[in-house]
Amino acid sequence: MNKVIEDLNWRYAVKKFNAEKKISNSDFDTLKESLRLTPTSYGLQSFTGVVVASDILREKLVEASYGQRQVADASHLFVLCSYSKIKDTDVDSYMQLISHTRNVRIKNLDGFSNRIKGEMNARSEQEILNWSTRQTYIALGQLLHTCASLRIDATPMEGFDPAKYSEILGLSDKNLTPTLAIPVGYRHEEDITQHGAKVRKHLDDLIQTI
Amino acid sequence: MNKVIEDLNWRYAVKKFNAEKKISNSDFDTLKESLRLTPTSYGLQSFTGVVVASDILREKLVEASYGQRQVADASHLFVLCSYSKIKDTDVDSYMQLISHTRNVRIKNLDGFSNRIKGEMNARSEQEILNWSTRQTYIALGQLLHTCASLRIDATPMEGFDPAKYSEILGLSDKNLTPTLAIPVGYRHEEDITQHGAKVRKHLDDLIQTI
Repeated sequence: MNKVIEDLNWRYAVKKFNAEKKISNSDFDTLKESLRLTPTSYGLQSFTGVVVASDILREKLVEASYGQRQVADASHLFVLCSYSKIKDTDVDSYMQLISHTRNVRIKNLDGFSNRIKGEMNARSEQEILNWSTRQTYIALGQLLHTCASLRIDATPMEGFDPAKYSEILGLSDKNLTPTLAIPVGYRHEEDITQHGAKVRKHLDDLIQTI
Repeated sequence: MNKVIEDLNWRYAVKKFNAEKKISNSDFDTLKESLRLTPTSYGLQSFTGVVVASDILREKLVEASYGQRQVADASHLFVLCSYSKIKDTDVDSYMQLISHTRNVRIKNLDGFSNRIKGEMNARSEQEILNWSTRQTYIALGQLLHTCASLRIDATPMEGFDPAKYSEILGLSDKNLTPTLAIPVGYRHEEDITQHGAKVRKHLDDLIQTI
């Protein structure tokens, strides 16, 4: 079996973390860099990662997560938040970033800028949030693979109260919708779910060739 | 720089593929297995991967993709389709799979089954499609990372006409909504976009710690 498949088979959604075992700074830098390098539509990166370091806040988030202790017990906690709206100024900032990174004149990016603004302004608020939320799930998929490569455990969680998360994290006036909580760290030896066989469809039931 | 970050920096959205260079069977098996091992909410795997092998169909899909040639020129083409509805029978099949894989009695899964059915039946059709689409984006994120690990190129595409895709691929009566086209293969040496510096926000603009 090759390393990629070994990694992906190794991972599972941890139910109980070892609260004593911490991710090294260098590995945590890799996880953040994995988020930063996430491919997104147009390259807009319409999400923000919140690292919740405060133990007090993490305990409050447990309550807003229907009691799921992973949020407090894991070594680190990411909350990925999607842009609720895409404003023209977000697109302008992105053009500045391209201009700066690639040393091209802003003026030469007008066509690209107008195309994105046109598409975004043609969508309803709900459609924008749906779209930016999907981009956030790309970040999740890439991050979970990165974690597995480093033998770091994770629990991808969409089951929490976003309004309470927003309040606890002080995001209410920030154009951000909490989308995913991703506690990361190391599985507890007592977490019996690690011993369960991985349940996946047979390849022929998942993928068809035409 | 460690290998994960090297991999993720290496990748970019290919504009022009080398149509002569094919992915080996063994690498393509790894890509399919990466899709199969995608983590999804409840483990439901509410998406299907369609590998479009027919050159005739791939040419038709170029037209339905606003002329983007990657769809026909790449070594292989995945179209990921999300479940439009989650039926009780989908949940029942999943319970059968758990029962078979883990050797547990179906009866012991009644609580889990009813919980999923209850949640799914409480949502509107649009909410279900939004939810299953998000799961499909996890598959995308994991697959792009897997591709990069194997130094296989990819172009993640959400810009196509889903109704035309559905017609061309014969999916109209199959409870599947085409969500993502992912041509995979090898970059053409003439693809100048490979030389552009990667545009990403500074870490401080993307991730905050509280």
